[in-house]
Amino acid sequence: MPKSPSESLVIKSELVLPNDTNTLNNLMGGRLMYLMDVVSAISAQRHSGSTVVTASVDNVSFSHPITIGSVVTLTAKVTRAFNSSMEVHIDVYAENIPAGKTKIKTNEAFFTFVAVDAENKTKAVPELIPETEEEKTRYEGALKRRELRLVLAGRLNIQDAVSLKGLFK
Amino acid sequence: MPKSPSESLVIKSELVLPNDTNTLNNLMGGRLMYLMDVVSAISAQRHSGSTVVTASVDNVSFSHPITIGSVVTLTAKVTRAFNSSMEVHIDVYAENIPAGKTKIKTNEAFFTFVAVDAENKTKAVPELIPETEEEKTRYEGALKRRELRLVLAGRLNIQDAVSLKGLFK
Amino acid sequence: MPKSPSESLVIKSELVLPNDTNTLNNLMGGRLMYLMDVVSAISAQRHSGSTVVTASVDNVSFSHPITIGSVVTLTAKVTRAFNSSMEVHIDVYAENIPAGKTKIKTNEAFFTFVAVDAENKTKAVPELIPETEEEKTRYEGALKRRELRLVLAGRLNIQDAVSLKGLFK
Amino acid sequence: MPKSPSESLVIKSELVLPNDTNTLNNLMGGRLMYLMDVVSAISAQRHSGSTVVTASVDNVSFSHPITIGSVVTLTAKVTRAFNSSMEVHIDVYAENIPAGKTKIKTNEAFFTFVAVDAENKTKAVPELIPETEEEKTRYEGALKRRELRLVLAGRLNIQDAVSLKGLFK
Amino acid sequence: MPKSPSESLVIKSELVLPNDTNTLNNLMGGRLMYLMDVVSAISAQRHSGSTVVTASVDNVSFSHPITIGSVVTLTAKVTRAFNSSMEVHIDVYAENIPAGKTKIKTNEAFFTFVAVDAENKTKAVPELIPETEEEKTRYEGALKRRELRLVLAGRLNIQDAVSLKGLFK
Amino acid sequence: MPKSPSESLVIKSELVLPNDTNTLNNLMGGRLMYLMDVVSAISAQRHSGSTVVTASVDNVSFSHPITIGSVVTLTAKVTRAFNSSMEVHIDVYAENIPAGKTKIKTNEAFFTFVAVDAENKTKAVPELIPETEEEKTRYEGALKRRELRLVLAGRLNIQDAVSLKGLFK
Repeated sequence: MPKSPSESLVIKSELVLPNDTNTLNNLMGGRLMYLMDVVSAISAQRHSGSTVVTASVDNVSFSHPITIGSVVTLTAKVTRAFNSSMEVHIDVYAENIPAGKTKIKTNEAFFTFVAVDAENKTKAVPELIPETEEEKTRYEGALKRRELRLVLAGRLNIQDAVSLKGLFK
Repeated sequence: MPKSPSESLVIKSELVLPNDTNTLNNLMGGRLMYLMDVVSAISAQRHSGSTVVTASVDNVSFSHPITIGSVVTLTAKVTRAFNSSMEVHIDVYAENIPAGKTKIKTNEAFFTFVAVDAENKTKAVPELIPETEEEKTRYEGALKRRELRLVLAGRLNIQDAVSLKGLFK
Repeated sequence: MPKSPSESLVIKSELVLPNDTNTLNNLMGGRLMYLMDVVSAISAQRHSGSTVVTASVDNVSFSHPITIGSVVTLTAKVTRAFNSSMEVHIDVYAENIPAGKTKIKTNEAFFTFVAVDAENKTKAVPELIPETEEEKTRYEGALKRRELRLVLAGRLNIQDAVSLKGLFK
Repeated sequence: MPKSPSESLVIKSELVLPNDTNTLNNLMGGRLMYLMDVVSAISAQRHSGSTVVTASVDNVSFSHPITIGSVVTLTAKVTRAFNSSMEVHIDVYAENIPAGKTKIKTNEAFFTFVAVDAENKTKAVPELIPETEEEKTRYEGALKRRELRLVLAGRLNIQDAVSLKGLFK
Repeated sequence: MPKSPSESLVIKSELVLPNDTNTLNNLMGGRLMYLMDVVSAISAQRHSGSTVVTASVDNVSFSHPITIGSVVTLTAKVTRAFNSSMEVHIDVYAENIPAGKTKIKTNEAFFTFVAVDAENKTKAVPELIPETEEEKTRYEGALKRRELRLVLAGRLNIQDAVSLKGLFK
Repeated sequence: MPKSPSESLVIKSELVLPNDTNTLNNLMGGRLMYLMDVVSAISAQRHSGSTVVTASVDNVSFSHPITIGSVVTLTAKVTRAFNSSMEVHIDVYAENIPAGKTKIKTNEAFFTFVAVDAENKTKAVPELIPETEEEKTRYEGALKRRELRLVLAGRLNIQDAVSLKGLFK
């Protein structure tokens, strides 16, 4: 039975504690990626109703330092389901309330998960039907990102990446 | 300027990892209270726009074991603001998706926070105006719970606990 | 075979490390409750000779900030045993030796635990016989606190809370 | 003064502990990315002689489950230096010695870092001169990956990505 | 003003959690040494009334496996004070209550600390006056252990280790 | 089949994070011993091809403070194999790159491990053949250190410590 993206929405707010930060007292990139992985894994669990394992992480860039004592809020939603895999989109917001810094979007990312059973065998996942305009755009873009992932992982020849090719014409 | 409870809504989803559990592989009560404290502190930060410190925790009971690998979702919202303190209500839900256990409400709690400035001095917080029926009920009940807290902390004589007295008539 | 409270005495000293503290460099309430849960669970294990699970936490108030680098010392002792449950009393003391702050009592709390077997079924626990005056006072008070817990958990009608009623006369 | 890649070689071996794993007892992707970030940040510190912050992470794929009790060995080396940024290549190897599973390469990744001073201002980094054939290949490929990063981050128009364009001819 | 060993007694009970254990589910030696360091540092803080830094750890042997879910209890007491350094003795006991394993002594150790001020300069510590027979024996033995430490650290020629020499006659 | 020390070489680089440090912002001795235990356990796993448990730690001294934000690099290599036990030598180096402090050797240590099977029974380990001069010196010294360990653990009468005796003549 198909599901909507909103059924897999997961929200996770965290305090940035001392051990999460580098010597400049800013959140370390690796710690943020850990949080992204957890929130998106829960989202993929919600969609698939099963255990999931991280299959890949798309390019993530970090352009806004997030200071110690900030609140980081991550939201995740499945964007498209394939046979046994799902792409999840994550938005990251940060605010430092005691320091008077209001909430801004600091990062976004796409993580891909595979649904597995208790023996670690892949299993089929429900179809995803996008509803809002943004969900539809991400649903459409998922094919292109998937091809790029396969090319970057060396599992698809770039000449065969049909949807990517168009980009360079 | 007054705020509504929904402005301080905070949601936090977590995976129950091995170190969070006791020898029966269930989430430890103390670990859950840690998570409750974090989510409600963020909620009180949102309402007050300042640093907050935990002032008290009301009676919490644990009647549903939460197994390893579960997802715990905590939601927090300010229920009433006093001069420099705020009461926050927390709901805890658990589900174990790979194990096929659907989401149930496992706990609820009230935490109280005090807003402080950088020198740890208390500071005034905005008024809270409840909107929904449930918010209004919690807003009304806050006075009674506050009296109970003061009595239990030995800072109010039970004979002077006006709103509690009525309960026993 | 009945046991005395001293047989379940547990002591736990801890250093307050950076990750235990909020942005004011004071111990977070949730972290302290985690430590309270661990020390009192060990105490209940000692009394019952079995695995225990946290059943409830009574109202706790936090009135003394505990600074980073402090030593926190928690002591726990069972105050009364019921069929399969035990009430444990916890005292918390803090001192900051390098900062020249001598030891003060900062908090106290009552946690309740249920003894369970390996299948998570409740099991009977030994009777507790109080010995000192303080132990006898806490033993007597345990019934009242138990009624209050049941009322607050919505499992006892306040009109039927016999021992609480007297308080308001 | 230019440096060679071998001057920034960093090796990090870790045991996979229970809290690093998912419910299938395999290392979580997010935990591995945390380790990748630490090892590559140290490598970039070595090359630049200064504090560094994570600027971006290229696509990473996870195709080999790494079981609890495994040893994970990460090696990192700077591949190319730009004005104030450096690309670092990371190889991940896993072996489970008690389980008789010999060492295999499980992942590789490129992280990019920016060198900053104590005020978080970017600063110039030394040039990197590749020495081995593999180092020269990675040095050459760095321009292409950099263009791809800029395109994916929305900071370069794909029509202007000179070195990427050739790929699709 | 001289102090007695009992003034520096520190007790620390801990639950052995999953992340503290190796693949055989037994407490890792390194984790136990971490706990020994914390409990003995607090003891040395108590005696000296100041910040302390670990100066050395004597030979420790591990002959009893401590299983997951055990309670570990560490007790520490200063055995002798020198100018600015103190030797601390630590006893480690383990019991696994749910598994029916009663408390046994599993390890003992001597840690040495130096008292320092806020600028990390060494400072004088009070004299220690042993009271019980066991305390007197350890007080006497401290000179011999100190010589051995200096020999092992290459800071004393074994020919000049007066009190050690007698041992081999 | 005999192995060389270089086959068991393990390297582990770590960032010193806030929670690893004392109130002077220097790495705690206990945390460093935890890292030493992990790196040397992996080395002993490599040599023996099996699970290992820590048997003993020789005297370790700490004479160089390692500041927060430093990189700590530990290297471990088996020095000699006995029937089922192995001695591992560990070197610790520290550098604080942003602070301009170059790499120095801060500590060294010997840990001993026993190889065990899945039932925690000891098992034989391969012979070790030293190759370099330094490896040969450590190989020779291992017997003396072993006798000292046995004497210090009260398992060998000092009169029977043949190789130690010579030292005092």
